[in-house]
Amino acid sequence: MEHEIDAGRVHHHWDNRLEPTLRIASGDVVNFDLAMAARGQIHEGATFAETSFDFDTLYNLLGPVFVEGAQPGDTLRVDILSLEPGEWGWTCVLAGFGLLPDDFPESFVRSWDLRGRTHALLEPGVRIPIAPFLGTMGTHPDEPVTAPAFPPHKGGGNIDTRHLLAGSTLWLPVWCEGALFSCGDPHAAQGDGEVCVSAIECDMRARLRFTTEKRSISTPRFQTPAPLTLLAEGTGHQGTMGLDADLMNGARTAVRATIDWLVSDHGLSREDAYVLCSLVGDLKIMEIVDAGVWNVGFTVPLSVLGTGR
Amino acid sequence: MEHEIDAGRVHHHWDNRLEPTLRIASGDVVNFDLAMAARGQIHEGATFAETSFDFDTLYNLLGPVFVEGAQPGDTLRVDILSLEPGEWGWTCVLAGFGLLPDDFPESFVRSWDLRGRTHALLEPGVRIPIAPFLGTMGTHPDEPVTAPAFPPHKGGGNIDTRHLLAGSTLWLPVWCEGALFSCGDPHAAQGDGEVCVSAIECDMRARLRFTTEKRSISTPRFQTPAPLTLLAEGTGHQGTMGLDADLMNGARTAVRATIDWLVSDHGLSREDAYVLCSLVGDLKIMEIVDAGVWNVGFTVPLSVLGTGR
Repeated sequence: MEHEIDAGRVHHHWDNRLEPTLRIASGDVVNFDLAMAARGQIHEGATFAETSFDFDTLYNLLGPVFVEGAQPGDTLRVDILSLEPGEWGWTCVLAGFGLLPDDFPESFVRSWDLRGRTHALLEPGVRIPIAPFLGTMGTHPDEPVTAPAFPPHKGGGNIDTRHLLAGSTLWLPVWCEGALFSCGDPHAAQGDGEVCVSAIECDMRARLRFTTEKRSISTPRFQTPAPLTLLAEGTGHQGTMGLDADLMNGARTAVRATIDWLVSDHGLSREDAYVLCSLVGDLKIMEIVDAGVWNVGFTVPLSVLGTGR
Repeated sequence: MEHEIDAGRVHHHWDNRLEPTLRIASGDVVNFDLAMAARGQIHEGATFAETSFDFDTLYNLLGPVFVEGAQPGDTLRVDILSLEPGEWGWTCVLAGFGLLPDDFPESFVRSWDLRGRTHALLEPGVRIPIAPFLGTMGTHPDEPVTAPAFPPHKGGGNIDTRHLLAGSTLWLPVWCEGALFSCGDPHAAQGDGEVCVSAIECDMRARLRFTTEKRSISTPRFQTPAPLTLLAEGTGHQGTMGLDADLMNGARTAVRATIDWLVSDHGLSREDAYVLCSLVGDLKIMEIVDAGVWNVGFTVPLSVLGTGR
């Protein structure tokens, strides 16, 4: 059976006292018309001064969906059937947030035209492939009864996993009766890490199928139908290394070196370079076993920089 | 000009007092016949009890190569022209080492037949694609004068970056006159992380071109000629998530969950699952900005498990 969830019943936190918006059977499909993060707090083309971000109401989650028969200890399978981004999106850097707050003390924001496009344009020749997913999908974690929207939790939530494209499957642990699934935070593009603190934030029409499985998993799992390479488009990658005893410091070193490269070799502004890193760059732990010094890599597909850059 | 480096002058540590094995000009090519880690301390098919690992002499590095004209502050470009693995390799788990020492307290080892093969076989149907690279390539870091072989350092060294396949380019900072490049630790296959502490360790014939660039870089960089997907072979991936305030703990959670999945869903032994994770699994930081809880992903290409598994 297929359902349309009430898009007017938005919530901004995880709260298992909320009345479910929808009750479904295992195997049912639900359509979600999801509002971008900060809908109404930013308009297309806004400068940062023109925004009115309110962190308490930033995420517009739809749900909870109550899946009949789902019990604590079960697993909720979520098949991501289709994802259609809205007409425009935004990306911001927020002072004090992101991977490099000391390097980027000033907030800024930019908008992206997504209408009929396969790529968002940073500047002529710098193209960001549209690869939509939902940043937030989760079951209520049971404890605490209310939880903020931003940190992910043992039911998933704000997992910001860019690999969950249409055709993928996500498995979530169930902690409450009925699973109490919610989703939101739609993204049109993001790299592994989301290093500048935001993706291309946009509206999204999402079609998801929910199935209860009578088994337990320790942490969220997923499966993709294809290689993890939509952004690569058949060309090479540039990479940098952060060699450090601390993975967080290594990540910072690697992203800083990529920003330096984008500025010095490709003429981007530092702000645009940081945004581009967040949207197309991938943090990977290339080595985590070598005598106390780890290697965090950060890679960027060369195709986004266009020919001859 | 093309050179053959003396394969008999092996060294086991970084030591800038060593007499260079070879002096070359910028633009020259060098051929290296590299011995596997622990050559002579393990034989093909050995059990762990039959090995005689000596950590002080485990890595058989060739070099140092002195590049005429290379000065501290320059960058050494290393073009990886070709890599040919030897006839067999080994992978081990060492008690007390690796990402999950508490989970795998017993050492064990296994051998791989690489003769004429595109894949190493873990068991019928479980195929590990051969994708050779050198685990160690580096310039001497100047300080300290002598440094152990295992931790990577500011000149690179044991970077264990699986993306440095033939056709790739690596850029290393130069810290000593002549750069003093050495390499070794050849690998026939490894995933991002090398989580069990070893790769497929093997002999390797390597052909590298060295070029001095008169610019400075802050940390090693690389570029690949193709997407970072040789292992994927056109199929999907299984992924797990480690949601944690600590990236190391998140990595452990994600790898443990993948081991659980390989055991429960694919019938592997826990030891084989750990080895397979080290050889084909990729650690990635999927989110590093969400209110103090990060998401470390671990993905495995489904193709290695064969059809129908």
